[in-house]
Amino acid sequence: MTHPGHAPTAATVADAGEHALIALIRARLPQAPPWVLVGAGDDAAVVETERNRPDVFTMDALVDGVHFDRRFTPPAAIGHRALAANLSDLAAMGAEPRLALLSLALPADLPVADLAAMVDGLLALAALHQVHLVGGNITRTPGPLIVDITAIGSIHRRRILTRSGARPGDEVWVSGTVGAAAAGLSWLAAGGGAEGGVLAEAVSAYLRPQPRLRLGVLLGRNRAATSCVDLSDGLADGLTQLASASGVGINVDADALPIPRAVHDWVAGRGGDPVQAALSGGDDYELLFTASPRRRGRLRGVIRLLNGLPVTKIGVVTDGGGVGLRRDGALCAVSGGYEHFS
Amino acid sequence: MTHPGHAPTAATVADAGEHALIALIRARLPQAPPWVLVGAGDDAAVVETERNRPDVFTMDALVDGVHFDRRFTPPAAIGHRALAANLSDLAAMGAEPRLALLSLALPADLPVADLAAMVDGLLALAALHQVHLVGGNITRTPGPLIVDITAIGSIHRRRILTRSGARPGDEVWVSGTVGAAAAGLSWLAAGGGAEGGVLAEAVSAYLRPQPRLRLGVLLGRNRAATSCVDLSDGLADGLTQLASASGVGINVDADALPIPRAVHDWVAGRGGDPVQAALSGGDDYELLFTASPRRRGRLRGVIRLLNGLPVTKIGVVTDGGGVGLRRDGALCAVSGGYEHFS
Repeated sequence: MTHPGHAPTAATVADAGEHALIALIRARLPQAPPWVLVGAGDDAAVVETERNRPDVFTMDALVDGVHFDRRFTPPAAIGHRALAANLSDLAAMGAEPRLALLSLALPADLPVADLAAMVDGLLALAALHQVHLVGGNITRTPGPLIVDITAIGSIHRRRILTRSGARPGDEVWVSGTVGAAAAGLSWLAAGGGAEGGVLAEAVSAYLRPQPRLRLGVLLGRNRAATSCVDLSDGLADGLTQLASASGVGINVDADALPIPRAVHDWVAGRGGDPVQAALSGGDDYELLFTASPRRRGRLRGVIRLLNGLPVTKIGVVTDGGGVGLRRDGALCAVSGGYEHFS
Repeated sequence: MTHPGHAPTAATVADAGEHALIALIRARLPQAPPWVLVGAGDDAAVVETERNRPDVFTMDALVDGVHFDRRFTPPAAIGHRALAANLSDLAAMGAEPRLALLSLALPADLPVADLAAMVDGLLALAALHQVHLVGGNITRTPGPLIVDITAIGSIHRRRILTRSGARPGDEVWVSGTVGAAAAGLSWLAAGGGAEGGVLAEAVSAYLRPQPRLRLGVLLGRNRAATSCVDLSDGLADGLTQLASASGVGINVDADALPIPRAVHDWVAGRGGDPVQAALSGGDDYELLFTASPRRRGRLRGVIRLLNGLPVTKIGVVTDGGGVGLRRDGALCAVSGGYEHFS
């Protein structure tokens, strides 16, 4: 039954109720592969493991008002980004993704149509990487929308990439570009619109980050990297985490940072420092990794298989502690990173 | 450095920052077993699977103001309950738990001491069931405290319990007692205090539910049950879920329900209906299962191994649809259950 003036798309999740929302999500799921023995709908999911390959687990949550803003992030992009953040963690280990679980905390006023679009955005990225959603949870909240995801992959035990293997003399590399997502976010927050204008690529990098799963798998499989971390909390944070976990230092060359020209000009045109923005901005779901110069042939082999994804050498691993930035002949300390918490 | 009048325990999570809170949690973790190849602290955890046993996954979140209330739920109980809810889902599948991931959304004013106590409560239950915390996430939120957990277990593929195997003529059983947790919650919400007075056992059932892992494993291993579900959202919901998934009906005998005497008297003394309260109240993390009368010997064998946990026959599976309650000679329809959403 429809009421005049109340289109079905105007219904909120509070109108629909928990069971109807679960049914809405389950109806969107593609058929599960045969190795999913019990899928969504029971108390828990049961899944065959991959023979001789350990499981890889990560869990990451996006909170409205902290990691995104519903006012200028389309629902499909929220779903995409939440899964991408998790897949990026798997990529940083060299793992291949298999499964995801989705836990949603929904404010009462969230339109059902937004929920559907969010799930569709998530499932489109999942399909691209052959990830199967096997369960999760849905609850109301008096607070902001939270999308919490657990992603599960698998990996050969001798191909695991960690943060702790960097050694002095290794080269430091980063995939794709840095600073784009943060610029895209600034553009959106300033009311620039989702098309992005001169920052179209940066806005797309923010709204639809592409987890670097193929790069991670190739680095692990070819033992082409000594350590790896993803840049969810920005380049400065990634460098700090990697240096700290490996017990080494890292010096980065400011001129080498792959900041897109449009981002550089836009930040500089607003009186900002493009290098600082690239270091401190979050949401670049790129891989930061170290590689031994003696194995540069392996890395070249990996790069040839990336279908054009750029990989840029940005610095070197040192035996001192901490992260330094070499710029205009001087070396300055880089600290911290972006803490979503503070 | 300490400031007079600002004891360390008064510090909030916003004062501490994300990295310090992660360090606080990691410092509390016991040593990981050797089959955890990469534990908490990297982009993702890497864990050896159990040979010839599929993985079992569940994800469940508790939200302050929805599933508990910080004003009268001690922090350690919040952590305990969040893990118990997940372990109860694994129990309902007949799985043995192995791992957990913890995702926390923390309001800025949460005392660090409360976070520590919450994690300690969670880890105490984890240790009891040999569950290892291998990762997770921490974020601030402008909303309520949310504790989101993913629990991972394993199971022999021929011992999986689902919701869908109940057949007409099966008997319907429930473990422990029903209605206690809801009464305990009412007591706490009315300001009765965590000791519980005449409702001490009910308050304990609410604050520290014991997931029925041993019962679930034994039912699966001995093929003593045809279907199983846990009572996280109450008895009426569990009955409805089980009947619906199995395509059968269930008739329950009101007089058979294992409502504790103290709960019965307390609810009746306040003008309530103890049977309705037991049906609609949530948070009883008991197992509801069906068993064929032809295999009653198997069930008796299981019951002997439960160290005194009562298991009570409360009804029968019928070939009609829906759930009925037999009471005072009449049969009334039971609908719905407790929806945390609406």
